Amino acid sequence: MVRAIMHGCNGRMGQVITGLVREDEGIEIVAGIDAYTGRENAYPVFESIDSCDVEADVVIDFSNAGATDALLDYCTGRKVPVVLCTTGLAQEQLSKVEEASEKVAVLKSANMSLGINLLLKLVKDAAKVLAGAGFDVELVERHHNQKVDAPSGTAIALADSINEAMDDAYTYVYDRSQVRKMRDKKELGISAVRGGTIVGDHEIIFAGADEVVEFRHTAYSKAIFGKGAVEAAKYLAGKPAGRYDMSDVVVL
Amino acid sequence: MVRAIMHGCNGRMGQVITGLVREDEGIEIVAGIDAYTGRENAYPVFESIDSCDVEADVVIDFSNAGATDALLDYCTGRKVPVVLCTTGLAQEQLSKVEEASEKVAVLKSANMSLGINLLLKLVKDAAKVLAGAGFDVELVERHHNQKVDAPSGTAIALADSINEAMDDAYTYVYDRSQVRKMRDKKELGISAVRGGTIVGDHEIIFAGADEVVEFRHTAYSKAIFGKGAVEAAKYLAGKPAGRYDMSDVVVL
Amino acid sequence: MVRAIMHGCNGRMGQVITGLVREDEGIEIVAGIDAYTGRENAYPVFESIDSCDVEADVVIDFSNAGATDALLDYCTGRKVPVVLCTTGLAQEQLSKVEEASEKVAVLKSANMSLGINLLLKLVKDAAKVLAGAGFDVELVERHHNQKVDAPSGTAIALADSINEAMDDAYTYVYDRSQVRKMRDKKELGISAVRGGTIVGDHEIIFAGADEVVEFRHTAYSKAIFGKGAVEAAKYLAGKPAGRYDMSDVVVL
Amino acid sequence: MVRAIMHGCNGRMGQVITGLVREDEGIEIVAGIDAYTGRENAYPVFESIDSCDVEADVVIDFSNAGATDALLDYCTGRKVPVVLCTTGLAQEQLSKVEEASEKVAVLKSANMSLGINLLLKLVKDAAKVLAGAGFDVELVERHHNQKVDAPSGTAIALADSINEAMDDAYTYVYDRSQVRKMRDKKELGISAVRGGTIVGDHEIIFAGADEVVEFRHTAYSKAIFGKGAVEAAKYLAGKPAGRYDMSDVVVL
Repeated sequence: MVRAIMHGCNGRMGQVITGLVREDEGIEIVAGIDAYTGRENAYPVFESIDSCDVEADVVIDFSNAGATDALLDYCTGRKVPVVLCTTGLAQEQLSKVEEASEKVAVLKSANMSLGINLLLKLVKDAAKVLAGAGFDVELVERHHNQKVDAPSGTAIALADSINEAMDDAYTYVYDRSQVRKMRDKKELGISAVRGGTIVGDHEIIFAGADEVVEFRHTAYSKAIFGKGAVEAAKYLAGKPAGRYDMSDVVVL
Repeated sequence: MVRAIMHGCNGRMGQVITGLVREDEGIEIVAGIDAYTGRENAYPVFESIDSCDVEADVVIDFSNAGATDALLDYCTGRKVPVVLCTTGLAQEQLSKVEEASEKVAVLKSANMSLGINLLLKLVKDAAKVLAGAGFDVELVERHHNQKVDAPSGTAIALADSINEAMDDAYTYVYDRSQVRKMRDKKELGISAVRGGTIVGDHEIIFAGADEVVEFRHTAYSKAIFGKGAVEAAKYLAGKPAGRYDMSDVVVL
Repeated sequence: MVRAIMHGCNGRMGQVITGLVREDEGIEIVAGIDAYTGRENAYPVFESIDSCDVEADVVIDFSNAGATDALLDYCTGRKVPVVLCTTGLAQEQLSKVEEASEKVAVLKSANMSLGINLLLKLVKDAAKVLAGAGFDVELVERHHNQKVDAPSGTAIALADSINEAMDDAYTYVYDRSQVRKMRDKKELGISAVRGGTIVGDHEIIFAGADEVVEFRHTAYSKAIFGKGAVEAAKYLAGKPAGRYDMSDVVVL
Repeated sequence: MVRAIMHGCNGRMGQVITGLVREDEGIEIVAGIDAYTGRENAYPVFESIDSCDVEADVVIDFSNAGATDALLDYCTGRKVPVVLCTTGLAQEQLSKVEEASEKVAVLKSANMSLGINLLLKLVKDAAKVLAGAGFDVELVERHHNQKVDAPSGTAIALADSINEAMDDAYTYVYDRSQVRKMRDKKELGISAVRGGTIVGDHEIIFAGADEVVEFRHTAYSKAIFGKGAVEAAKYLAGKPAGRYDMSDVVVL
């Protein structure tokens, strides 16, 4: 049984993970860290990682950039692997993450979802087989109406993964309304739909002669990043120093 | 039983309709017209409409513009209603269609598909209810890689139908990759996917708070226009002179 | 501006509705009722409806059956319309609801979602047009792996709505694996998919000759019932005594 | 350039393949075989394979069981690999296929579609990753209303492929309407939708905590089997004796 410290245990994701771990027989939370200690948990909670004296095999981190430096010091000092999910780190902090990974296992990923990380791999295989046989590739992503960027970073990551498998031969096309011409074989169209509170849908379409193969990922809430973090923690416990990401966890 | 003349009976659509009518108890083909008379049919075939002496209640036309003038003369002269599906008519011919419709029932529609014509109506109702309750509206269409225009005429027709129900308050948006801003309530995004031999898919998405309502039409072949033509013929037989379209056939 | 009392304001749905109303210019919450008064709200909260002296145009109720009797007494006494969303009422209480509706406007519905209630109407229209033209009708619903009944009540309601439009001509079919025979025209297949935490997806499929029309509803959370309740409250304020349901709110 | 003999060149699939090969730079048809020789082709057509004296690297066969024996004799005698797509072979003929494969390369597959054969592999990977992380697996297939068996052979093949990756731990469930109980982790639900002329849709659903990953294959016509046969022929030319199937062609 992997023993985990939940760093940021009383935040939204910390509580999501607390719930997920409760139903997982391969991992348990042995301590929590949170500046806010007002919530009851089944494990002891410490105000900061420095004051935590509970032994653990891995730290899962969903807190904020302000707590990252102390976390990295703790993990390198005690040689405890860490799944780092806090976003918005400063450039200096990112360098510190690199340094830490020379002394301890550090996992950090652009997208923590298991499903997306699986698709990042499978679309490569699909591209080799289908695009090689003349299928066209297109992506459609859907997100809520508050999102300011388009297409989503995940859509671009999926496109890049396909493109890499095809020797970067594709050009991404975001709009077909301004020209009157047939699709070029080397195009990869990416469409962005925006509406309501859609958490995040990604569809990868391989269209051939009278045949379409589609891959679709639907997120119902951000809790999916918690699920990925739990799987990552189980994977990372006991691993040697180094930089890891979700592609290591999702092994085909 | 409605008695129909199939004008262009030995072309692809003529044969599709011949097959559909065979299984329809409300209509029969009593004669066919085609310059090419080499094919066996269960009905007599005449080289031109002028030489046809079989009495009928309606003409279904899927031929070519070169045969349209004689067809209109025949229908106005004999007072036989006509479902006119030939495309690419010259401006003069379109005027002649208008004139003919003063003497006989003429049905002509941009899209003959029953499903699309139904959706053109239903999305209006949906827009009134859902857009009124704060849902965002988006469209995604998919077509084969040989199509030169985007978005499709049918996608625009669907958007126009929604927009009409909303007092033309929407602006159509075809690309979101060039700006970094949140979606405006009055946008209606339209995305065009191109690939393989996809005949024509249209998806209308109403996205609200934690809830999405979608309408989707998938065409598996152009035979769907034949199905619409048959229903149109059954509807048109016996109708007074005038201009009709598929929205008359699809009565909610 | 409609003035609403939120009955059960500190429960999950009460808080969801509090959030939705905050962004709605047509309605405001002027008081809340909840046995638990520990939570801060922008409106005064009373422990029971009896102790509430704030004037209102409508009550939105998402509490529990134990509080329903007092609620009905209050609403009939003060002539305040009520949107009743508490489930699990006893038979006696249901009778009391009927009695109350003779004195005041009462809205109660099996499913409060706007989208589902819209589809309950639109599939009727679709059935008349498409089933009339030979399309087959099938339903597929998806729910989480904890749901014990199948198919869902909403799937049955959708099937019933279609069936009603077709003079109850359909027989529902839940399994095709045990017989080796072609589909009968009068079948309406209903499939139930179970997995993960899927909140509730419903797909209605009209399949014709080379053409498929689909209607799909996806729920991302139970908050959608809150959205429906808010729209119902705005509708119900000022209405005469009587029994109402969501089909009154969703007017095409 | 692979030189192919098209066995059954004037049948529907023979003509589909003739069209596909015309646009493929890696393969050409050097001769056709068909009992019916009335159709014009760009290559010489022989009434039977015995009378064909054109040298070739592979035979693509889409004819009928009556012509299979002579075909196998030809291929083993001349050492020409064969892609065998004729169905309905007698038990004796199947034995003869086995014997032939000891002398020459023979490819025969339950489903010739590239997309389906790709998915047969990818769902294995997905199952290992996702089912291992607690996702539930379900299948939904859709076919036309004339199909007498349910679920489709392809749906079963997909389920078997997933099940194999999970040490055959799953039980297939075809109906959930007759019991009132929660889904078991070891269930794999398979639903069959029947309607219209749907050629064949297969959806594989992995549903986890707030996350769904779907794989979908849509066939628009049976021409997809032709595409697979062409790829198979290009693969098989030059291969040593042995029994091959589409999984050899679809290499990840």
